[in-house]
Amino acid sequence: MTVELKKPRIGRAADALRPVTITRRYTRHAEGSVLIEFGGTKVLCTASVEEKVPPHKRGSGEGWVTAEYGMLPRATHTRSDREAAKGKQSGRTQEIQRLIGRSLRCVFDLAKLGERTISLDCDVIQADGGTRTAAITGAYVAAHDAVSWLIAQGKLSSSPIKDAVAAISVGIVDGVPLLDLEYTEDSACDTDMNVVMTAAGGFVELQGTAEGVAFTRKEMNALLDLAEKGIGELLAAQRRALEI
Amino acid sequence: MTVELKKPRIGRAADALRPVTITRRYTRHAEGSVLIEFGGTKVLCTASVEEKVPPHKRGSGEGWVTAEYGMLPRATHTRSDREAAKGKQSGRTQEIQRLIGRSLRCVFDLAKLGERTISLDCDVIQADGGTRTAAITGAYVAAHDAVSWLIAQGKLSSSPIKDAVAAISVGIVDGVPLLDLEYTEDSACDTDMNVVMTAAGGFVELQGTAEGVAFTRKEMNALLDLAEKGIGELLAAQRRALEI
Amino acid sequence: MTVELKKPRIGRAADALRPVTITRRYTRHAEGSVLIEFGGTKVLCTASVEEKVPPHKRGSGEGWVTAEYGMLPRATHTRSDREAAKGKQSGRTQEIQRLIGRSLRCVFDLAKLGERTISLDCDVIQADGGTRTAAITGAYVAAHDAVSWLIAQGKLSSSPIKDAVAAISVGIVDGVPLLDLEYTEDSACDTDMNVVMTAAGGFVELQGTAEGVAFTRKEMNALLDLAEKGIGELLAAQRRALEI
Amino acid sequence: MTVELKKPRIGRAADALRPVTITRRYTRHAEGSVLIEFGGTKVLCTASVEEKVPPHKRGSGEGWVTAEYGMLPRATHTRSDREAAKGKQSGRTQEIQRLIGRSLRCVFDLAKLGERTISLDCDVIQADGGTRTAAITGAYVAAHDAVSWLIAQGKLSSSPIKDAVAAISVGIVDGVPLLDLEYTEDSACDTDMNVVMTAAGGFVELQGTAEGVAFTRKEMNALLDLAEKGIGELLAAQRRALEI
Amino acid sequence: MTVELKKPRIGRAADALRPVTITRRYTRHAEGSVLIEFGGTKVLCTASVEEKVPPHKRGSGEGWVTAEYGMLPRATHTRSDREAAKGKQSGRTQEIQRLIGRSLRCVFDLAKLGERTISLDCDVIQADGGTRTAAITGAYVAAHDAVSWLIAQGKLSSSPIKDAVAAISVGIVDGVPLLDLEYTEDSACDTDMNVVMTAAGGFVELQGTAEGVAFTRKEMNALLDLAEKGIGELLAAQRRALEI
Amino acid sequence: MTVELKKPRIGRAADALRPVTITRRYTRHAEGSVLIEFGGTKVLCTASVEEKVPPHKRGSGEGWVTAEYGMLPRATHTRSDREAAKGKQSGRTQEIQRLIGRSLRCVFDLAKLGERTISLDCDVIQADGGTRTAAITGAYVAAHDAVSWLIAQGKLSSSPIKDAVAAISVGIVDGVPLLDLEYTEDSACDTDMNVVMTAAGGFVELQGTAEGVAFTRKEMNALLDLAEKGIGELLAAQRRALEI
Repeated sequence: MTVELKKPRIGRAADALRPVTITRRYTRHAEGSVLIEFGGTKVLCTASVEEKVPPHKRGSGEGWVTAEYGMLPRATHTRSDREAAKGKQSGRTQEIQRLIGRSLRCVFDLAKLGERTISLDCDVIQADGGTRTAAITGAYVAAHDAVSWLIAQGKLSSSPIKDAVAAISVGIVDGVPLLDLEYTEDSACDTDMNVVMTAAGGFVELQGTAEGVAFTRKEMNALLDLAEKGIGELLAAQRRALEI
Repeated sequence: MTVELKKPRIGRAADALRPVTITRRYTRHAEGSVLIEFGGTKVLCTASVEEKVPPHKRGSGEGWVTAEYGMLPRATHTRSDREAAKGKQSGRTQEIQRLIGRSLRCVFDLAKLGERTISLDCDVIQADGGTRTAAITGAYVAAHDAVSWLIAQGKLSSSPIKDAVAAISVGIVDGVPLLDLEYTEDSACDTDMNVVMTAAGGFVELQGTAEGVAFTRKEMNALLDLAEKGIGELLAAQRRALEI
Repeated sequence: MTVELKKPRIGRAADALRPVTITRRYTRHAEGSVLIEFGGTKVLCTASVEEKVPPHKRGSGEGWVTAEYGMLPRATHTRSDREAAKGKQSGRTQEIQRLIGRSLRCVFDLAKLGERTISLDCDVIQADGGTRTAAITGAYVAAHDAVSWLIAQGKLSSSPIKDAVAAISVGIVDGVPLLDLEYTEDSACDTDMNVVMTAAGGFVELQGTAEGVAFTRKEMNALLDLAEKGIGELLAAQRRALEI
Repeated sequence: MTVELKKPRIGRAADALRPVTITRRYTRHAEGSVLIEFGGTKVLCTASVEEKVPPHKRGSGEGWVTAEYGMLPRATHTRSDREAAKGKQSGRTQEIQRLIGRSLRCVFDLAKLGERTISLDCDVIQADGGTRTAAITGAYVAAHDAVSWLIAQGKLSSSPIKDAVAAISVGIVDGVPLLDLEYTEDSACDTDMNVVMTAAGGFVELQGTAEGVAFTRKEMNALLDLAEKGIGELLAAQRRALEI
Repeated sequence: MTVELKKPRIGRAADALRPVTITRRYTRHAEGSVLIEFGGTKVLCTASVEEKVPPHKRGSGEGWVTAEYGMLPRATHTRSDREAAKGKQSGRTQEIQRLIGRSLRCVFDLAKLGERTISLDCDVIQADGGTRTAAITGAYVAAHDAVSWLIAQGKLSSSPIKDAVAAISVGIVDGVPLLDLEYTEDSACDTDMNVVMTAAGGFVELQGTAEGVAFTRKEMNALLDLAEKGIGELLAAQRRALEI
Repeated sequence: MTVELKKPRIGRAADALRPVTITRRYTRHAEGSVLIEFGGTKVLCTASVEEKVPPHKRGSGEGWVTAEYGMLPRATHTRSDREAAKGKQSGRTQEIQRLIGRSLRCVFDLAKLGERTISLDCDVIQADGGTRTAAITGAYVAAHDAVSWLIAQGKLSSSPIKDAVAAISVGIVDGVPLLDLEYTEDSACDTDMNVVMTAAGGFVELQGTAEGVAFTRKEMNALLDLAEKGIGELLAAQRRALEI
């Protein structure tokens, strides 16, 4: 594929997020249900509460938070095969759902959650780059709603959520560090980094990959600066959404 | 589960459809993309055009129309396992996607379509009964949009679509024949029938199942009367949506 | 495939069944073992009793009746792949075995059966059209034998079978409604309908499919008349077989 | 399971086969179709001709002979799970079908067969010990019929079959060497050996297994004497069947 | 592949084993860990003790001994696909691991082992013929070490091992019976036999296969003479290794 | 699991690697075969050359470099299930093999490699932390040997390798940044980071994960300092190994 992007992005500053929309109660049945949009990327994140835990947690007194990720076959430019029909999830899918699960568990006090599971299903309705970071950011809001439901039901007396968490992608395209890559930028970039941070300012996950050319320490620092800025704005968007 | 429904439905006549909404161009990438809603049931139907056909059609000069069906894990009251994670599609899923495919092929002139495939992906975002009939009704509109795209692209000179097709469920609940069952009615019904018809008034598919008590010829006729009425209204809704 | 069938069938009236043979105790180990033949179609139906139920029935006091369907690789004109070797059952196989299971459960009082399972294995030894309807008709006899065995063993004091059940296919070939389609007729037909009825005269399952041309209400009524006649004869054949 | 068998077998000499029945043209569609019975063991062996070869033979000018083995779920005393439903063939099934395939290939001149495949499907209808040896013995007759069909069709001018092949099980039960073990003997035996031989008198396959107690060279020789006698009788039965 | 081997082997007598090396404690974590080498064939055999048994042994008071076999993708001349990536074990792999398991169980008193499992993992690091016989011979030593560990831990008071077991391949190449075939000989051989024997001199498993030409009773006897000689030497090598 | 590690590591400085051993030509058949040891972690890395490319590279004139990762069942403290027997690779396995593949491709000029594939199989013989970083470091040496073989065979005139690549893990344990975590440290750490760098000093991959407590920018910088030091030493070890 020939992707040409000789100039910095047009119509959006290098350090600007795409418009972020967080719609709570998007579907009816789940304890938490959030549609999150990062520009043209739309991910439905539902949080489901089940009063049981996987085998490795049984009898521990602790709960579990886990995630699954999927992409509708025509969320992308060209139709991709349905994983259910192929009979297996791709390595990419598994990598992403493991990342979402770890990121969310990091802000949960599992003992305080009690022996129950919160399952976060992140299904991409439309993809335009950054689906995994949108998924983490939206899943946090859905998980928060599920916890509120548990408290309202009298099943929990206080929240096991210790901190907020959000994620963004950053990358270097034609030598220019950019925040929140959309699909055409992602395809053209030299370095791609996904950053997950808490509201307290710490890093939870950091995954940087050089596509072709290795990146320097200095470039990485520029990218982390951008990511910190973007995540600050996402955390604010989460707070606003949860106040409604 | 104890479902009590001693009286006919409240707030909707026995022969009334739930509110039907058809939203075209719901997502960006597919050649046809339709969100169809039958009350609380919401199904995203995308139509994807590929310039190739499955092995049994290669070299035949004919095209193919096929469908896949999926349900997001938390589209339902309780979370169901993700089929991609389990590594296989259930018998129910396969039954439904075969039904959708046959229903749509019935209104296509495959020779006129030429050696290309239209794949209809029907993904249930929220379920409240009647997902398969909503999927067929919405898939027709998505397929129509994909054909218009093919014509606009100059790949087809005229439409290979011979007729319109829509589907509805009917059933007997506590002795009362009802049109367009929602989930609580579906769970309580004695007989459940899915009917697929064309605009020309013929039956394409008919699937009736007695849940517990067998049904009589007379009951069946009452159900078919209801179905014909409902499908007439759905065909009108499809026409209105396509005019926009 | 070019199938030409310009005239009504030769050597058999349009409303005549093929010769039906029901051989009980066909194999030695099963609690019920029936070879049923509809002309050239031969299906071995065994009923196996197990003193346990699937998870969704445990502790309910109710039993379960289920079915599996298979086709030997060379039951057909050309060899089909062995499903065990491919590692999955086709959608068609799953659709058929679900139909058989529902049809048989409809005539069972599951509470009266007690917490045990009757598994009906329907394996096609030779196929010439109508394998699913032969399977249902034969499985009823095998299930009846398994129940007699349970009574003879003192495990049941009376039969949980509420009614008899049988099934037949009907279809329209070149405009002529025909009873009990054989393979060449099935391949050439415009409409194909499988009908499952009880001895009490009710419908249990009805599955009609238009192959190409949609069918009218009038045609459907003609087909149901044929089906009622044929099923009456099949129920008589079952009774005779069980008297031996 | 407690199997007691303190005395030599009753009603059959230690060196006697069970009654052997070979029924050709048992089903209608296959190029060769044989029901073989060794007492209560009944295996349907079909031979299917396909005008293509697996990848490793393409362009070699040579044909291929292969086998698949299956057991109907209730061929046995207690129902075993259907391999197609489980989604995989057991190690035992694969071991047996590889054995059948090797045994049959040993008597074929694959170059003379030409680039086509003969698939031997051996499906156990009823099991009472010795299913794999019955399968090999029956598959030979089915393969012979398929070759006669190829000659009759003018696709082959002479037979690629170089020799006949048959197989039998032998074993030591309570210290007594026995020919052609039935199920209760097989369960009680110390040593179990499956022997495959050609009409020319050579060994094609030999598989001996000690169940508990190792066996001596002398015991093995006694078993091979029995096997040679039994296989001689099976080869005669094959010849008689093929003369009809 | 053209393998020419017109003369008896060079540099090794027809009745000579390749150099045998048995290295205990090859890896750190397993209760028994043995690298066994038969010339260029290198197999890592680990024995793992688990304090549980498979379902068919639960509550029986008896233990279980089982084996799994694998081949690293590039253990062979050309890379073979990784079975974990393909999602299934080949028939050959299953056949071999079942053989190893049966061979080892034959020398174990399972009641004396108690309700625990010894799993023998035999992974081929480098293949040059005879991998299954090396695996059995090495697995015995690993199992012995695992039993010694159980005794040292106070979990067993005496050994449940009743006898030693070892295995070797023999074959006829160009009419010459040879002991311990290496890969080029194995590829060229007419007959290939794997023999498993105990120290007490009995046969546990015997698997002979004619590759092309059937073998005579006399040839089989010559091969068994060779195998007995070779296994005697392997049993001595096992004893020496265990004395260290 | 309770892992207590209140003090900095004993017997090794916080910024010291474990002893590194690189053994080339470890097995016989592969074009490159390297056993790499980081202390108790032992990984066999083989490089296999195949004169074909995967579908997405066919006709492109470019080659491909890919990797697969596996762990012998008893490489670890307790036996883990064999992935080939389970029928699927875990998410962890897929994540690791994708990481190895990307890391190696980063130092290859794929056009210069020509239309052929180098497959890197990294199989863990013994695990004690850091298996993925050892795998990358060893796979580079194996790939280098495979390229030398291609040049020696006259298939390449110059090397398509643009730079060397190596990897190391770093982490924070009880507040102390440590280089090259062994298993007990890895289990106890707050933050775990895998770093992949080229000899030219650039980053290729960076994967940091907070286990429990998020990490700060300052901590990350301390970890990267350690990683740069360690990778420098590994690159030197690779050079020494390749000089032999």
